[in-house]
Amino acid sequence: AASGEPLSALCTPALVVDVDKVKRNAKRMMERCHQLGVQLRPHMKTHKTLECADIMTGGSRRCIVVSTLAEATFYADHGFDDILYAYSLPFDKVERCAALSERLDLFQVLLDHPDALERLRKRPLKGGRRWHADGVELTGVYAHCGNTYNCKGVEQIQAVAQETTSFTLQFMEKLKAVGISCKSSIGSTPSCSHPVSDMGKLSEVHPGNYVFYDVQQSMIGSCGLEDVAVRVLTRVVGHCPHRNQLLVDCGWTGISLDGAGKLPTGYAMIEGHPDLKLLSMTQEHGRVEPISGPLDYSKYPIGSLLTLIPYHSCAAAAMHPVYHVHSEGRLMGKWTPTRGW
Amino acid sequence: AASGEPLSALCTPALVVDVDKVKRNAKRMMERCHQLGVQLRPHMKTHKTLECADIMTGGSRRCIVVSTLAEATFYADHGFDDILYAYSLPFDKVERCAALSERLDLFQVLLDHPDALERLRKRPLKGGRRWHADGVELTGVYAHCGNTYNCKGVEQIQAVAQETTSFTLQFMEKLKAVGISCKSSIGSTPSCSHPVSDMGKLSEVHPGNYVFYDVQQSMIGSCGLEDVAVRVLTRVVGHCPHRNQLLVDCGWTGISLDGAGKLPTGYAMIEGHPDLKLLSMTQEHGRVEPISGPLDYSKYPIGSLLTLIPYHSCAAAAMHPVYHVHSEGRLMGKWTPTRGW
Repeated sequence: AASGEPLSALCTPALVVDVDKVKRNAKRMMERCHQLGVQLRPHMKTHKTLECADIMTGGSRRCIVVSTLAEATFYADHGFDDILYAYSLPFDKVERCAALSERLDLFQVLLDHPDALERLRKRPLKGGRRWHADGVELTGVYAHCGNTYNCKGVEQIQAVAQETTSFTLQFMEKLKAVGISCKSSIGSTPSCSHPVSDMGKLSEVHPGNYVFYDVQQSMIGSCGLEDVAVRVLTRVVGHCPHRNQLLVDCGWTGISLDGAGKLPTGYAMIEGHPDLKLLSMTQEHGRVEPISGPLDYSKYPIGSLLTLIPYHSCAAAAMHPVYHVHSEGRLMGKWTPTRGW
Repeated sequence: AASGEPLSALCTPALVVDVDKVKRNAKRMMERCHQLGVQLRPHMKTHKTLECADIMTGGSRRCIVVSTLAEATFYADHGFDDILYAYSLPFDKVERCAALSERLDLFQVLLDHPDALERLRKRPLKGGRRWHADGVELTGVYAHCGNTYNCKGVEQIQAVAQETTSFTLQFMEKLKAVGISCKSSIGSTPSCSHPVSDMGKLSEVHPGNYVFYDVQQSMIGSCGLEDVAVRVLTRVVGHCPHRNQLLVDCGWTGISLDGAGKLPTGYAMIEGHPDLKLLSMTQEHGRVEPISGPLDYSKYPIGSLLTLIPYHSCAAAAMHPVYHVHSEGRLMGKWTPTRGW
């Protein structure tokens, strides 16, 4: 499908990204952090693309978080710097971390075990650099309020955000009392979408999913469904009246198996068809049925397009070697994510 | 990790393929089909690599099945021919199917709806070729006994194999009675791993998963666990005594969420540790806990390697941009699968 063509020109299944919503989600998070007075360090794990990283960093290509060394290397290769690898130092990857530390202005690793400190000491950095007590410097404290994902609504999100912030700030005070001054960072898209004012006392926040959002985030209360920037397009490829089902061309290779049992509409929401459920999937097929009553097949001819709103955009995006980007339904180009470790 | 190195040289998570088991599984299926007198048309969807396709076709690069047009194009680009696209003709991909039909000696598509026949008629092939009644020729009848996946044990598998074969052969007789002679094919790794003699009356069989097998196939009774040719290697990256858990570096990006609720050991079996369970996963972390009792952390130091046997090898492989191939634990090289549609 060429630039300027409508989404219906795409072969399916296809992951499509609404670039206007991406920009709006990114802008709102930057503004929110600016108002709080906290540094935003956006996480790249949801999309893993250069283009979206540019949007999330406002073009600075600085101050990002990644979930894998493949991402770190990909971004480093393309001029990004000040990269935080948000993973407890993996002992099999110390050499690769050292190489990135020697090559970038700033590459940050996480330690949560005394053995990890020992590993860093055994691999001193070249070029006069050092793992910023004995050749290792503590840069900051990194916490993630993953428990916001159990919240329903802004009030619950803000209670968890407040608790995480308070615990982190109390810990910083204890560090200061023993003479250690360093940065602090908490994360999660829910808490950063509805921040509490105390988060302004932290150094950084590190949300990531917000750039796409998804059905899960809308259920938590992080966003409205209208903020979700990604869809998986699929087509009807079969009618199964003996089972009161449609077959669609999106299997688990197109949207993942994330979200099982979470939604009345199955593994996704089907845009404009709240009465339909994505019941189950095989590798290349999805089974769609009405939540109740008989299916009106005349509404879903073979070849017709359905639009899935993913339960978890990180998991859906991870299945796609390319994302199709559009503005108001007109294709603008493709984004290619990095994969692997 | 270089060729000849042990598996422990790999960064994790990593999908590793035992090439000797792959060759043995492939050879046994070829011999079984030869003895039955039925043509084997192996399915590529499990691995999607050239190297494994060569092993499954005995080097002929002919007579394969694929699940996506991306696979069809990938194999066509690398000298494969006689490719069956095992998908009801998708209306958005008629032009791409036509192009493959014009380019290959033989490219076969599946039709299961009168509208699909109409689509083919509207796109006559160039170069004197034709969609093999009115410009379209029926090549054969393709059935898949997916219900073998609900079997437990050889007896149940063979009952389904017999039923599918009998129904298919009866249908062929009905076609013959109205003057139509054509091929017949049934599939599934369970039925082809334990075929019934009547399957010799079919033209072809089209299993695929057998080349890797997996825990699911061992539970169905298609194979023994010792036949499973793939593993996901993972390392301990955290101790969580407050939860009686280990953290490992395999999340759903490393093995998929397939198999939820199917095994007492969670999303996989952990080789040599039948007492451990892969309870849950986030994007880059797995939580491992004992099936019962307290965890002995001294047995699982940070950095130690665990070996996961996937519940569903198709789904686990789909998460990996590269497979690491070994013989008796020594690395031999990498296989790179094709992805997308």
